[in-house]
Amino acid sequence: MFRGQAKEDIFIDAHLGPAIIPGPIELDDEVLYANAHPSNSHVSPDFVPVFGDCIRMTRKVLFTTVGQPFLIAGSGTLGWDQIAANVVQPGENALVLNTGYFGDSFAECLETYGANVDQLKAQIGATASLDDIETALRAKKYRLLTLTHVDTSTGVLSDAKAIAATVHRVSPDTLVAIDAVCSVASEELRMDLWGIDIVLTASQKGLGAPPGLSILVAGPRAMKCLGVDALYIFFCRWLPIMKAYESGKPAYFATPPVNLIYAYHTALTQITERQPSLEQRFELHRLASKEVKDTASSLGLKQLVLSPAFASNSMTALYFPDGMTAADLIPKLSAKNIVVAGGLHTEIKEKYFRIGHMGVTAVDRQRGDIHKVTTALKELFAAK
Amino acid sequence: MFRGQAKEDIFIDAHLGPAIIPGPIELDDEVLYANAHPSNSHVSPDFVPVFGDCIRMTRKVLFTTVGQPFLIAGSGTLGWDQIAANVVQPGENALVLNTGYFGDSFAECLETYGANVDQLKAQIGATASLDDIETALRAKKYRLLTLTHVDTSTGVLSDAKAIAATVHRVSPDTLVAIDAVCSVASEELRMDLWGIDIVLTASQKGLGAPPGLSILVAGPRAMKCLGVDALYIFFCRWLPIMKAYESGKPAYFATPPVNLIYAYHTALTQITERQPSLEQRFELHRLASKEVKDTASSLGLKQLVLSPAFASNSMTALYFPDGMTAADLIPKLSAKNIVVAGGLHTEIKEKYFRIGHMGVTAVDRQRGDIHKVTTALKELFAAK
Repeated sequence: MFRGQAKEDIFIDAHLGPAIIPGPIELDDEVLYANAHPSNSHVSPDFVPVFGDCIRMTRKVLFTTVGQPFLIAGSGTLGWDQIAANVVQPGENALVLNTGYFGDSFAECLETYGANVDQLKAQIGATASLDDIETALRAKKYRLLTLTHVDTSTGVLSDAKAIAATVHRVSPDTLVAIDAVCSVASEELRMDLWGIDIVLTASQKGLGAPPGLSILVAGPRAMKCLGVDALYIFFCRWLPIMKAYESGKPAYFATPPVNLIYAYHTALTQITERQPSLEQRFELHRLASKEVKDTASSLGLKQLVLSPAFASNSMTALYFPDGMTAADLIPKLSAKNIVVAGGLHTEIKEKYFRIGHMGVTAVDRQRGDIHKVTTALKELFAAK
Repeated sequence: MFRGQAKEDIFIDAHLGPAIIPGPIELDDEVLYANAHPSNSHVSPDFVPVFGDCIRMTRKVLFTTVGQPFLIAGSGTLGWDQIAANVVQPGENALVLNTGYFGDSFAECLETYGANVDQLKAQIGATASLDDIETALRAKKYRLLTLTHVDTSTGVLSDAKAIAATVHRVSPDTLVAIDAVCSVASEELRMDLWGIDIVLTASQKGLGAPPGLSILVAGPRAMKCLGVDALYIFFCRWLPIMKAYESGKPAYFATPPVNLIYAYHTALTQITERQPSLEQRFELHRLASKEVKDTASSLGLKQLVLSPAFASNSMTALYFPDGMTAADLIPKLSAKNIVVAGGLHTEIKEKYFRIGHMGVTAVDRQRGDIHKVTTALKELFAAK
């Protein structure tokens, strides 16, 4: 299937709120206010330290002191190109741990840039076992192993820590790259301690800023700057820019998304320098997730994930009860001012829906988002 | 020289206002307000027509009915990658008309993707003559000719209409691509009538929105969708997305910069559907430019452009008087609440400064930006 085709049938959505979807998430007013910052030059003395702070705070969120953040105007999708172009040479082997739609996409991108890609496709709702990963790593030498930390299409959480440990034990030269678009600031992710070589993410999910910023952090092993036939996605083009801003000086390669950087700065400040702490935020995401999942279970709704061990804390994917479809659910949820998302996994997209509980929805309980969605679920499904 | 190096010495800037720089430009309050739009899903019924309108209005600004707009999260720099990857095959010939820093960059990007690049480097402050262009086109078969409509580093305006006519007459198979980052909505640019195959631009200059949106419009001849080893920049990936949104349906390949699209929509609405009209806007840019340039001339300040025929209406580049440097000018302009930009052309960057007069600065005369800058120039330089 050509991934770019119109997918108007796969989303449930409406113009009502709150949008309890797995991104773009609801935004804090302070973040929106920062996004309306008056125009400023990308080299102004006001803006330079803001960009520098964003680089520093991005490291904090990922628990890394050695990772090099790249903050670039772009969608999260750009991160796949960045990894495929900068880390893997054409003809090198890559192993993709596939837990849904975004594993398909990561594999496709790596292939597009010339990598030889093998996939370990997990059963829907699960991850590959560590034994299977070890077997695959022993069978072939891989330059890169990729995993989707939380696959937005399924809500499956991969055990990044255990997988990275397996890679380091069995195939220490293999780099570990994580698509963490749907997990950063919602799920624990410790780059240095776990030995993660690259994390790609985006602004519009757990980080709580508007979409449009590609955020990638590359560890020392990933920073080799191989020569690729590209300009905008090339680490070496951006490295001196990031280093300059971090040291308090402006530099130019392309105009950064100034307003979005202001918004991201505000979101990162809330996450890294205020209460609740980052660790407390992870716990609040676990609590919000548990509340949604427990409610769903009590109503007889079946989760897409096959075991709590695979369940993301940033979102919940639920099968419709027998006989119900997305078309049944839309008007009922709209009537209750609730926006959720439809299925996305190509094999079962008609059969389930997705609830996001990231950022302010999980952390700022006074908003009442979680209460609204659990109440709506009870009202809709208790009657069945 | 490695282009990505820190260039902290090339900009004059301060945190005061107004910023009379060649982008990011001052923004209308209504645009900033739209940028603070509450979070919305990229597939919501509210957002879909907004994206569709942006596609339609982008065509209007470029006077094209057949061009295909691509609105993608990214800086203007991304447009070079898009053109280099989608339009030119490795080994094909490209002719770059170079009128400054951004000609260097366009050439470098095309080479990075494997094109054989020849450059017609104009004298600083001028463009190549039509005769020289014709001679070059007769000497070799070129797949692509590129020009920078207004080179932000020099303020040199290229005669896109006459150059395109020359290309069509002498080498009709050669595609014409225009870097119009510093000209769209400030200088007349008629894609269909003039036979321009591709225009690349960005949100933060004459279009009057915050930076972060790459805007590229490809005509029918440029839409061949050659297979390139890339994902994010590939026309064919985005074409079904743009077609879907234009037809009122959402589609997914990457999450668009939702808030920035709202801001761009507001800016485009002001440009295409309100008074002054687009043609009147061009005239207002001409008047603002004339006022700045006449004031400079009356004070004995020498323009970087060698003839009025090469002078952009979106910005003005002025040599410092003998003995003055950027370091002399900064505190004096800061004291007057004026922010201008330093030199950028590598050969002479210490010797001149740049004034931007795009968007609201030129169109909304009640802001008084032009009056402030001409008054400041008079006060600073009349005393010499």
